[in-house]
Amino acid sequence: MPVLVMKFGGTSVATLDRIKRAAKRVALEVAKGYDVIVIVSAMSGKTNELVGWVNETSPLYDAREYDAVVSSGENVTAGLMALTLQEMDVPARSWQGWQVPVKTTSAHSSARIEEIPSDNIMAKFGEGMKVAVVAGFQGISPEGRITTLGRGGSDTTAVAFAAAFDAERCDIYTDVDGVYTTDPRIAEKARKLDKISFEEMLELASLGAKVLQTRSVELAMRYKVKLRVLSSFEEPSDTAGTLVCDEEEIMESNVVSGIAYSRDEAKMTLQSVEDRPGIAAAIFGPLSNAGINVDMIIQNIAEEGRTDMTFSCPTDQVIRAEKALNDAKAAGELNFSDLIADTNVAKISAVGIGMRSQSGVAAKMFQTLSDEGINIKVIATSEIKISVLVDRKYMELAVQSLHDAFELEKA
Amino acid sequence: MPVLVMKFGGTSVATLDRIKRAAKRVALEVAKGYDVIVIVSAMSGKTNELVGWVNETSPLYDAREYDAVVSSGENVTAGLMALTLQEMDVPARSWQGWQVPVKTTSAHSSARIEEIPSDNIMAKFGEGMKVAVVAGFQGISPEGRITTLGRGGSDTTAVAFAAAFDAERCDIYTDVDGVYTTDPRIAEKARKLDKISFEEMLELASLGAKVLQTRSVELAMRYKVKLRVLSSFEEPSDTAGTLVCDEEEIMESNVVSGIAYSRDEAKMTLQSVEDRPGIAAAIFGPLSNAGINVDMIIQNIAEEGRTDMTFSCPTDQVIRAEKALNDAKAAGELNFSDLIADTNVAKISAVGIGMRSQSGVAAKMFQTLSDEGINIKVIATSEIKISVLVDRKYMELAVQSLHDAFELEKA
Repeated sequence: MPVLVMKFGGTSVATLDRIKRAAKRVALEVAKGYDVIVIVSAMSGKTNELVGWVNETSPLYDAREYDAVVSSGENVTAGLMALTLQEMDVPARSWQGWQVPVKTTSAHSSARIEEIPSDNIMAKFGEGMKVAVVAGFQGISPEGRITTLGRGGSDTTAVAFAAAFDAERCDIYTDVDGVYTTDPRIAEKARKLDKISFEEMLELASLGAKVLQTRSVELAMRYKVKLRVLSSFEEPSDTAGTLVCDEEEIMESNVVSGIAYSRDEAKMTLQSVEDRPGIAAAIFGPLSNAGINVDMIIQNIAEEGRTDMTFSCPTDQVIRAEKALNDAKAAGELNFSDLIADTNVAKISAVGIGMRSQSGVAAKMFQTLSDEGINIKVIATSEIKISVLVDRKYMELAVQSLHDAFELEKA
Repeated sequence: MPVLVMKFGGTSVATLDRIKRAAKRVALEVAKGYDVIVIVSAMSGKTNELVGWVNETSPLYDAREYDAVVSSGENVTAGLMALTLQEMDVPARSWQGWQVPVKTTSAHSSARIEEIPSDNIMAKFGEGMKVAVVAGFQGISPEGRITTLGRGGSDTTAVAFAAAFDAERCDIYTDVDGVYTTDPRIAEKARKLDKISFEEMLELASLGAKVLQTRSVELAMRYKVKLRVLSSFEEPSDTAGTLVCDEEEIMESNVVSGIAYSRDEAKMTLQSVEDRPGIAAAIFGPLSNAGINVDMIIQNIAEEGRTDMTFSCPTDQVIRAEKALNDAKAAGELNFSDLIADTNVAKISAVGIGMRSQSGVAAKMFQTLSDEGINIKVIATSEIKISVLVDRKYMELAVQSLHDAFELEKA
């Protein structure tokens, strides 16, 4: 039997009724002849509640315990989904990460999947089971402790299962009906894309368009997994959603395909750092060891042998970043006068494969923001994207004006 | 180092503040030189919520999925407790049932613990860890699926760990400050007992005095585990709570030690059953196979070769019991006209070791209920207890009048 992977996000399993609705979609695919692997997230809000408890208990938490706590939400929905399918006479059972086992690295709270043996589940398919419901987002470390894959990790679980089981397709069911040129809640002219390249999706995902987790797109690109994003609240249809695929499959590339934004980025500035060879390593080595995901980096021009170093990182890593840097300072490995965290910023990005062959995109972006009186704090660019940090209060305005400027409402 | 087991029930870990309060008690025992094994329940209300979801999804649920779902609450508190202890600089980590592993039978949703290897946790104690926080109520079957031990199973987990680790004592922290002559919420004259025998505690527990789970007391009796019940909301003291111990350690036994009650009992009547040899086996065989805990059994006098058979079982097993009996009827193994379930009853019991040597206890009990105009529906007796089923509306009155009649307010 061909294998299909279906992933349901938190809003798609938020209540028992929604789990039933999702199960009906699964039953439809079973009726078509698929053996289905269903990956479930926790009911929406549950993981946030658990993360909140951990943070309140221990701001500098032991990530192994964090994982043991926050992985529990997916176990609940996996069991409930299996029961719902059984009630529809679809043979199903649930698997928790350690039962498959989903083998990961020991990098707790942001572990990477290393291997998913398929024999256990394939044997059950052989015995007549039609659906394996797997708790997403979680795995087991070589030491036998529970790991999690980072926020949105269930997407990665889904793509990894699709690769491991050579699935025909990986359908990601979420609360939006596809990938948009930007967030429709912010710009009402936002338009749904029928197709988008892996590369663009990767940038959009990493830049805060929360439709898919970055790593899931990376994985899909590497293993050529056909990935479809669609809504669990629309009627089933073969043309629903957005297909994430190879660049070659898209006839005409836009200069800019989408505008992304992120509220969860903080700007951190180390003031009066010694300007000497190796200083970047002295700063970013400890941050890397502490598991901080540094994104943009800016170094000011030095005066009298001192300089300011600015970088951005996720807001929820600020406390860890401060500790890592202050520890390095205390150990004499690093010297700075002040460490200033600014969590009142937002990141805005324009993404498009067409940028590779078309110039003037950055200039148009900066001019548009300038016309609106929006000050740019940090700039970073790559081959197919341009990102800026701005004051958070300008976030919506920046997204709307850029969407207009690049005429993204037009197909 | 001597090992101490401390178990915290749902109300003792209901909020982060309460977890902190519990952790402080653990830290006190660590300071005294103990290696401590902490067994935690789910935050109060959580397990009920999960059970509710399972029942709503699938009234005749697959118990393996039930277990996968309802075991998740304990995982959350185990992790949060470990984090809280770490914040107090007490070296601690959490264990889920399958990690220890707590090996159980495959009787899902009411599994029995078969073995708890101590090497894994003892090795960590050897490395300087002071507290092992274990998720109560759960284990792993020989097939590698998650099992649970039945409601209140965390008490059993605690006693089993105390036996497996040869613990000096097993302290059960709950929301009451000990074992009472009856429920103080119903009879305000209820008096706290300093000591109670295993046998009496066993009857009280099995009869609905929800301080300790029956099986935990059985286990403690068999392995001679010193068991103490005390409140996590009182100041620590060496004389707090109630010690559950051997009969020999109690100087003078009361004729009646306590009055217990249970709302969760249903009365089921099979009408017009064929009265023939083997009929009891034909009824209770299928119920046993379906995992129904039948308690009292009454058979009426037969007329014209037909009789009525009445039995009681927990309210939440009524649907299963009905299915098992109707299936047996459909299979031609059993014949009856009607099956009537009455969930509007309550069970009231008088318990005391002194009954063994003193007569007239039953007569006094029946007279007392009669004086209050309370009709008795079913009677069952054992060596140290007398139980009756009455209309639920009389439950409080029955408890109060019996407490008065046996003068239980006097030490």
